[in-house]
Amino acid sequence: MSRALLFDAYGTLFDVHSVIALCERLWPGKGAQLSQLWRAKQLEYTWQRSLMRRYAPFSQITREALGYACEFLGLALNPSNEKLLMAEYLKLAAYADVAKSLEKLKDHKLAILTNGSPDMIEPLVRHSGLRFDAVLSVDELKIYKPAPEVYELAVKRLQVPKEEIGFVSSNCWDAMGAKSFGFTVHWINRTGAPVERLGFRPDKIVSGLNEILS
Amino acid sequence: MSRALLFDAYGTLFDVHSVIALCERLWPGKGAQLSQLWRAKQLEYTWQRSLMRRYAPFSQITREALGYACEFLGLALNPSNEKLLMAEYLKLAAYADVAKSLEKLKDHKLAILTNGSPDMIEPLVRHSGLRFDAVLSVDELKIYKPAPEVYELAVKRLQVPKEEIGFVSSNCWDAMGAKSFGFTVHWINRTGAPVERLGFRPDKIVSGLNEILS
Repeated sequence: MSRALLFDAYGTLFDVHSVIALCERLWPGKGAQLSQLWRAKQLEYTWQRSLMRRYAPFSQITREALGYACEFLGLALNPSNEKLLMAEYLKLAAYADVAKSLEKLKDHKLAILTNGSPDMIEPLVRHSGLRFDAVLSVDELKIYKPAPEVYELAVKRLQVPKEEIGFVSSNCWDAMGAKSFGFTVHWINRTGAPVERLGFRPDKIVSGLNEILS
Repeated sequence: MSRALLFDAYGTLFDVHSVIALCERLWPGKGAQLSQLWRAKQLEYTWQRSLMRRYAPFSQITREALGYACEFLGLALNPSNEKLLMAEYLKLAAYADVAKSLEKLKDHKLAILTNGSPDMIEPLVRHSGLRFDAVLSVDELKIYKPAPEVYELAVKRLQVPKEEIGFVSSNCWDAMGAKSFGFTVHWINRTGAPVERLGFRPDKIVSGLNEILS
């Protein structure tokens, strides 16, 4: 039984691709492509910088990934557009099933464990109106998911043994990192993707947050 | 001045996309897409497993990435096709400018530093007919590029100080890892891609191996 539920933020509670609308307004016909590449580079940079031991906060990485993606796609990114796009990350839409699902789960300790640095995740959670017992960021460790010390941070901070923590992510590699560390893992597979081949299997595969613990 | 030149293998000396022809023969119309996704997943798994501290040899990761890519694309991978595709990795084509360029550089110590496990890189180098003073694999460290200890391995094995080692890669993130460690870095940018935003710049950007040191 899980006493605490620990949620990934970007892609799990909040839709990173809610930036598409603004991307599309700025560069018609390129919105989806820009959003995809921006997100892909953002993740790559978290892994590569962690391995290089050259941590930079998620806000910096997100801005750098945007710069790369625009240059790759031949889109001229001026400072005012950059500012607008970065501001979108502070008000990403929560998925439709988030508020109701969290309400149903409120007899658990509910927390976020995120790559997001405080300057990004705190305004985002505030904007969403969602309430959590804790919002934990990798920023204090200076290494990104799926390093085991990231998951360990939640055990220390929530004061709940890892056997009693249910971890929820729609990023399969993040779910696998959490499983490797020892959490019970719920992978939210919204798109019907295959399980990533990383040596583990999620404990439960669901298609939405509303199915957690049901 | 560089006394030694250290080359990345996959994507730099050897074209990982020389598997497209077989992919295309097995699944007409899907060859390029399969090759791209196979390579992308192969790299992701090296970073993710390194951070999870769940190293697996590159041969295993390459097979697992192939499995993911086929499932994602809805291609039925049977054991005989898997065997055929994995065998392609042992005879990847060297880029056209490799043999001549190495010949021109032979007053340097010439070595390979690769993610490839010995069961993959040794047959590949043998098949190519190219000669190196050393073929160094991350396999003995059980962590993948761009971790600094990987680049450090070359310093120890070649017995050349890092200031005198020129590192050559067409994988920009690998070049950045080598630069972060302290090598002089030549990034081979065959496709006109932007520089990855990882906090460093290559010392030299060239469009082919033949321009190294020229």
